Amino acid sequence: MPSDAALNEFLDLLRFGSISTDSKYKDQILGCADWLKNKLTAIGLEAKLHETRGHPILVAHGPKQKGRPTVLLYGHYDVQPVDPLNLWHRPPFNPGLENGIVTARGASDNKGQIFAHILGIEQTMKEKGDLPVNLIVLIEGEEEIGSPNLAPFLDAHREALACDVVAISDSSMVAPGQPTFTYGLRGLAAAEVLVTGPDHDLHSGIFGGAVENPATVLARLIAGLHDKNLKIAIEGFYEDVKALAPWERKAWKHLPLQEIELLRMSGAPALRGEKGYTALERIWARPTAEVNGIGGGYQGEGTKTVLPSKAMAKLTFRLVPDQDPQKIFQLVQDYFHKNTPPSVKIDLVPGHCGEPYLVDPNAGYGMAAQKALGRLFPGKKPALIREGGTIPIVAAFKSILNADTLLLGLCLADCNAHSPNETFPLAHLDLGANLNRYLLEEIAG
Amino acid sequence: MPSDAALNEFLDLLRFGSISTDSKYKDQILGCADWLKNKLTAIGLEAKLHETRGHPILVAHGPKQKGRPTVLLYGHYDVQPVDPLNLWHRPPFNPGLENGIVTARGASDNKGQIFAHILGIEQTMKEKGDLPVNLIVLIEGEEEIGSPNLAPFLDAHREALACDVVAISDSSMVAPGQPTFTYGLRGLAAAEVLVTGPDHDLHSGIFGGAVENPATVLARLIAGLHDKNLKIAIEGFYEDVKALAPWERKAWKHLPLQEIELLRMSGAPALRGEKGYTALERIWARPTAEVNGIGGGYQGEGTKTVLPSKAMAKLTFRLVPDQDPQKIFQLVQDYFHKNTPPSVKIDLVPGHCGEPYLVDPNAGYGMAAQKALGRLFPGKKPALIREGGTIPIVAAFKSILNADTLLLGLCLADCNAHSPNETFPLAHLDLGANLNRYLLEEIAG
Repeated sequence: MPSDAALNEFLDLLRFGSISTDSKYKDQILGCADWLKNKLTAIGLEAKLHETRGHPILVAHGPKQKGRPTVLLYGHYDVQPVDPLNLWHRPPFNPGLENGIVTARGASDNKGQIFAHILGIEQTMKEKGDLPVNLIVLIEGEEEIGSPNLAPFLDAHREALACDVVAISDSSMVAPGQPTFTYGLRGLAAAEVLVTGPDHDLHSGIFGGAVENPATVLARLIAGLHDKNLKIAIEGFYEDVKALAPWERKAWKHLPLQEIELLRMSGAPALRGEKGYTALERIWARPTAEVNGIGGGYQGEGTKTVLPSKAMAKLTFRLVPDQDPQKIFQLVQDYFHKNTPPSVKIDLVPGHCGEPYLVDPNAGYGMAAQKALGRLFPGKKPALIREGGTIPIVAAFKSILNADTLLLGLCLADCNAHSPNETFPLAHLDLGANLNRYLLEEIAG
Repeated sequence: MPSDAALNEFLDLLRFGSISTDSKYKDQILGCADWLKNKLTAIGLEAKLHETRGHPILVAHGPKQKGRPTVLLYGHYDVQPVDPLNLWHRPPFNPGLENGIVTARGASDNKGQIFAHILGIEQTMKEKGDLPVNLIVLIEGEEEIGSPNLAPFLDAHREALACDVVAISDSSMVAPGQPTFTYGLRGLAAAEVLVTGPDHDLHSGIFGGAVENPATVLARLIAGLHDKNLKIAIEGFYEDVKALAPWERKAWKHLPLQEIELLRMSGAPALRGEKGYTALERIWARPTAEVNGIGGGYQGEGTKTVLPSKAMAKLTFRLVPDQDPQKIFQLVQDYFHKNTPPSVKIDLVPGHCGEPYLVDPNAGYGMAAQKALGRLFPGKKPALIREGGTIPIVAAFKSILNADTLLLGLCLADCNAHSPNETFPLAHLDLGANLNRYLLEEIAG
C-alpha cells in the first residue's frame, strides 16, 4: 500500500473539482494544473504550464542524456462532470476511503493512473537521481472535451516533444490482477441524418397515405444499414477492413472476459451481432453502425395523431484498421442519397471522426511493455487485447510525432469512470508505480 | 349576408373563450353553454343543460309531432386552445371582421357551423312556428378533448335522444362553392412500442458490436411494417378491408381537390404511398400505418457516443371499413412479438381507438342530404367524399342510437381550425341556415 504521504497527496489531487467542460470550475482546473506542476518539480523534473486557448497543458522533462530512448508519458488532469449528483454516495470531490478503495470523481480517470506513474518516477528519482530514459510527462486538461488544443500544441512543439514511444495509462485491465496491453483501438466516423417530408407537421388522418412519413423513411434507411447476418450493407464498407489474425482469435478465446461477463455488464437480454464473430471480436476488431440517438414527431405523453415533418438520427460508425473515416463518411452519404425516395429531402452532416489504431504488440517497444507487465504479476502472461473505443490523440501522436503508443490500463472495468461513484483501488497506486519503473527500465533495454 | 342582429349574436358567441381542456376557462365554458341555451329557448325550442362529470351538454327539442322523422343535430361549443398566441393577428376571443371573413378561435370549429344551423331553425320557426321534422339539438362542450362524457350520456338518454338520423356540420367543403357530402370516415388504432436492450445507456465503443442497438431494432420493425409497394406487410391486415366501389374511384377523379392541391398543402417534395391507388383514394379509403413519434438515445446538440438502452415509437393505424380496431391491435402486437430478436425486450401498449364509418350516400337519408346540398348551389352536383380522419362520436351514434350520420361540412379547407387565425366566411352563415332549412325539408320528404 502507498505511504501515508503518498496517500494524502493523492487525496489532495482528487479534491480539485477539475471539470473541463464547465467554466464555473476554471479555478479548480488551474489549481489542479498548478498542484501537478509543483509535484513534478518537487520530484526533480523541469515542469512548465503552457497556456492554450482552453486549459493549460503541463509538460515536464526528466534528466536528459544523449543516446537513450525518449518516452512521452501522457495523462490528463481534467475530469468528467458529476451529474447526476444524487446518485453519488458521497460528495464527488471529497474523496472517501473504504476497504482500500478510493471513491471520487477522477479516481480512475485519470488522476489515479497518472499519479501512480508520478509515484514511480518519484521513487526512481529518489533512489538514483536519474531515470533510465529521457522522460517527457505531458498532462493536459481537456481530454474529457475532446482535446481540442492538443494536436496544435504537439504540432507547435514537435522538437521539444520528439520521442520514440508514448505511454498512456487511461484504460482498464481486462480483469482484476490481469496485466493488460492494448495494441489496437477502433476509429470513428459520426454523421447526423435529417429526413424532411412535409414542411410542417400534418394531421395523420387528413394526409396519411398520400404523404410519406419521414420517420418511416428514416427507419427504412437505418434498417438497410445491416443485412440479415448483421453485416453492414453499405457498398464498399468492408473494403479496407484488416482481417483478424489467427493468433488474436485464438488468444482472445482464453481471456478472463467472455460473453457471460459482457452480458452481465450490459444488462441486455442477450448478446447479438455480426455473424461469424465472437462478441469480443465484434467489439475489438469489427466495425459497427450505431444509432446513438433518434427523434421525430410527438414524444410526449399520450397520443398526437401527427404525420411529422422531420425525423433525425445521430449515427456513429466504429471503424477498424485500415478503414479511413473520411472515405467511410463518403460511402455512408452515398448510401443515404441513393436510397432516399423522392418524397423526402435528406441532409447528412458529418460529425467528429477518429482514426483506428493498431500496432504489432510483439514488435518495437511492444515487447518492452509486455516484459514490464510480466514483472508486475510474476507468472502471469499479459493479456494482449484491442479496445472498441476511440482515443483520437493516439492517432495524433502517430501522425505528428511519428510515435507509437503503449496503452497500459491500470483501472478496473467496473470503476465507474464517467458515472457516479467512480473508484480506484489504492493498491493500484503501487501497481502503477511499479509499472512505471519496470516500463522505463525495459524500454531502456 | 346575415342580418345585423344575427352577426352581432355570432360575434357574442365567439367572445366566449370556451376552451375545454383548460380549467381556467370553466366560467367561459359555462357562460357559452348558457348563452346557447337562452338562444335556443328564444327561438322556440325547449332547451336544457345537463350536468356531466365534465362540461354540460345542451339538449333542445323542437315541436314534436307523431309520424314525422326525428333528426338529431349535433355540434360542440368548446374550442381548441389558442397557443401559440403570438402567431395570431388579433386576440382570438375578440373576433374581427375583414372582407366578409370573421377571424376568431372557434369561428369554423364549431361555432360558425352550429350557429348557421341555429339561424336556419330560427328562420323556419319564425315563418311557420314549427319545423318539418322532430328536431333534437345536442351541443356538447367536450369534443376537443375526445367527448369523454358523450357516449355515457347517449346511453343514459336513449329514449329522449331516439332519432332516425344524425346531422353534423363539423367538416370542410372539398373546395369553395362545392357542396360536399361526407359518407365515410377512417377509424383508428393507436399503439406505443417500447424496445429495451441493455438496462442502461452503454458506451458505443466499449459495447458496440456485442450488444444489439434497440433503436436499430425498432427501425427494422418499423421498416417491416410496409412492403416495397408500400402496402402494410402485417399478416391479415387487409383481411376485412372493403374494396373501393368503381363509382367512387370514378367520381373522385373529377373532384376539385387533386394531387397538386394536396402537394401544395403538405409542402412535401412529392406525394408517395400505396401502389395502385391515387392520393385521395389512399387518404380516404385505404388503411395506413403512421409513426406519430419516435425517440431514443441522445437527441441534444453534438454527438454522444451512446448505445441507448431504450427506443420508442408512437404508432397509429388509420383503418377503413370493415376493419376492427381491436383485431388490428392484436395483429400489430403479433407482428411485433414475432419479429423481435432475443437481444431486446418489447412492450406494446394500446392507445385509443375509433371505428371506421361508411354509409351508402345514395340510400336512406343520404339522398335527402344530396338534394338539400343541390338546392344550396343550383346546378352543382354535391361532391360525395370520404374523409381520412376519425370522428369517434359517429360510431357512438350508430352503436347507441342506431342512427346513421350525415356529415355536411360548411367550412373551408384553409380555415385554420386548430391553428392560429381561424376563420369563417360570413356568407357561410347564410349558406348553413339554408342548408338547415333544405335538409329538414328534404328529410321530411
